[in-house]
Amino acid sequence: MLKSQKYAIGVDLGGTNIKVGIVSREGRIIKKASLPTLAEKGQDKVISQIKKGIKEILSHNKLKIQGIGIGSPGIVSTKKGTVENPPNLPGWEKVNLKKIIKKEFNIHVILENDANAAAIGEMIFGAAKKIDSFVMVTLGTGVGGGIIINRKLLRGEFGSAGEIGHISIDFNGPQCNCGAFGCVESYVGNNYLVKRVQNELKEHNSSKILDLINGDLNLLTPIIIQKAQFAGDEYAASVINNLGLYLGVGLASTANVLDIATFIIGGGVAGFGRPLFNSVNETIKSRVLKPLIKRIKVIPAKLKNEAGIKGASALVFYKS
Amino acid sequence: MLKSQKYAIGVDLGGTNIKVGIVSREGRIIKKASLPTLAEKGQDKVISQIKKGIKEILSHNKLKIQGIGIGSPGIVSTKKGTVENPPNLPGWEKVNLKKIIKKEFNIHVILENDANAAAIGEMIFGAAKKIDSFVMVTLGTGVGGGIIINRKLLRGEFGSAGEIGHISIDFNGPQCNCGAFGCVESYVGNNYLVKRVQNELKEHNSSKILDLINGDLNLLTPIIIQKAQFAGDEYAASVINNLGLYLGVGLASTANVLDIATFIIGGGVAGFGRPLFNSVNETIKSRVLKPLIKRIKVIPAKLKNEAGIKGASALVFYKS
Repeated sequence: MLKSQKYAIGVDLGGTNIKVGIVSREGRIIKKASLPTLAEKGQDKVISQIKKGIKEILSHNKLKIQGIGIGSPGIVSTKKGTVENPPNLPGWEKVNLKKIIKKEFNIHVILENDANAAAIGEMIFGAAKKIDSFVMVTLGTGVGGGIIINRKLLRGEFGSAGEIGHISIDFNGPQCNCGAFGCVESYVGNNYLVKRVQNELKEHNSSKILDLINGDLNLLTPIIIQKAQFAGDEYAASVINNLGLYLGVGLASTANVLDIATFIIGGGVAGFGRPLFNSVNETIKSRVLKPLIKRIKVIPAKLKNEAGIKGASALVFYKS
Repeated sequence: MLKSQKYAIGVDLGGTNIKVGIVSREGRIIKKASLPTLAEKGQDKVISQIKKGIKEILSHNKLKIQGIGIGSPGIVSTKKGTVENPPNLPGWEKVNLKKIIKKEFNIHVILENDANAAAIGEMIFGAAKKIDSFVMVTLGTGVGGGIIINRKLLRGEFGSAGEIGHISIDFNGPQCNCGAFGCVESYVGNNYLVKRVQNELKEHNSSKILDLINGDLNLLTPIIIQKAQFAGDEYAASVINNLGLYLGVGLASTANVLDIATFIIGGGVAGFGRPLFNSVNETIKSRVLKPLIKRIKVIPAKLKNEAGIKGASALVFYKS
């Protein structure tokens, strides 16, 4: 390990855990730490946990760190360095996280929405090393997006572009947490998905899903649905197929608006694997404008477990 | 008029007429011509009409022309210079219009989708002289869009970005000409609008619209609907209000994806005026992500009758 190599710190601010790591320019994690977010204790506590995590990995560090990248949920203004109303971090209004961390460590800090960080992570270290333009889709509690055009992140006016989870695919659809109706997230987000399946299981009482949870609907998770599909359950297969439809409709609109044909999908629900990817792919191809059809590609993200840390650190390398 | 001033030729390729003009850097039309497109006679005839129009305005010309800008319907690849499957121009597959015109006149040629040209026209000459980022929406037979971010046109991978008319606002909605379902265009495009109202009038047989067309549904046009609304017809008002809803849902999704808050609306149906603009504005504000709400602005296009020629000529000034 040469001292002349380049390193960055990546901070993955999640609702449950804060993950921090030192990452090399080649995408190797040199050192890492994980702390509870303690979101329920409020904003100040979370910020002190972030500082604690960074201090922890900086202790005994002799590598030259180029900067700290932070991937945060919520609406992030990269320009101003603020995070606004992050879901899962109750009590946060608008926090200038960039300023706070910069002041503490006196080092270059870049703050980005976590989905944008994931997009940059895939571009610098992952599936998009050789792809110039793509949309990153992160499937989890929320449905996030990051848009890369000609190897540049599309930020929009205030740095909050890419909210593909809040494309409405049915103006009369179910209400989303954001207040609008029929958002992609309100069909595909983990909690919405679980709730919908819990309801639908009343009409699908021979589904293997019910065996897997011993009839206790509170035990239902996306992984259970995946297991049931894998075991040949038709209802579970239809759930995954529909997820692909909902997501695909939103992505077809995205392709038409942006003239981008490559979609990289990551995050928990992406674990549904081939059945989900096939459905997304077929939906987009059947709904996108004709000249785009042949170019459509839907591929899985490459960065898996440490996508958060790596994506956040990639913000530093992307800038420099 | 100084000879040192800058001039460009703008070509507005429409389904019925081809309009050509010499336009000054200040947006003044110096000379213009209009020819029938003769679309029904096929591709070669249309191209010879374009050449004829340009020759006509170039005769006796002593001004220094910097280039020819062409605004064309259909999917345009600015990079390649091709037009693909333009609606209203039957029999066109893929034509390298840029090459053909450049060969004929030996001058710099820029080809753009007509909605992109309209966006650049508003930026250079119109309502967006001082607006850095906005989405141009053109309402007509089709619903087109042009996206400007930080005074640059967003082209996407192959130059066909901006197709906001093909955002699906209901994945189970009516089928659009493009093959997909529930596209904004399939609600808001002139022909779809007229057809829907023709059907709905069966249930609204006291509407003033029926008086205005003497009961002959074939006479129905958007202007008739506007007249009826102006005369206080409740059904006509609800039609315009719904148009604003459909369009607004698509634009709210667009705002979320692009982080752009200003929408400039032009084209025929924009003549519905304040009732339409109010409905669009209210819909977007009630459905967009929270941090965007305050910034949302929906404003009418400034270039009216000669928007096509001016927008096309602006392509040249935008480039130079």
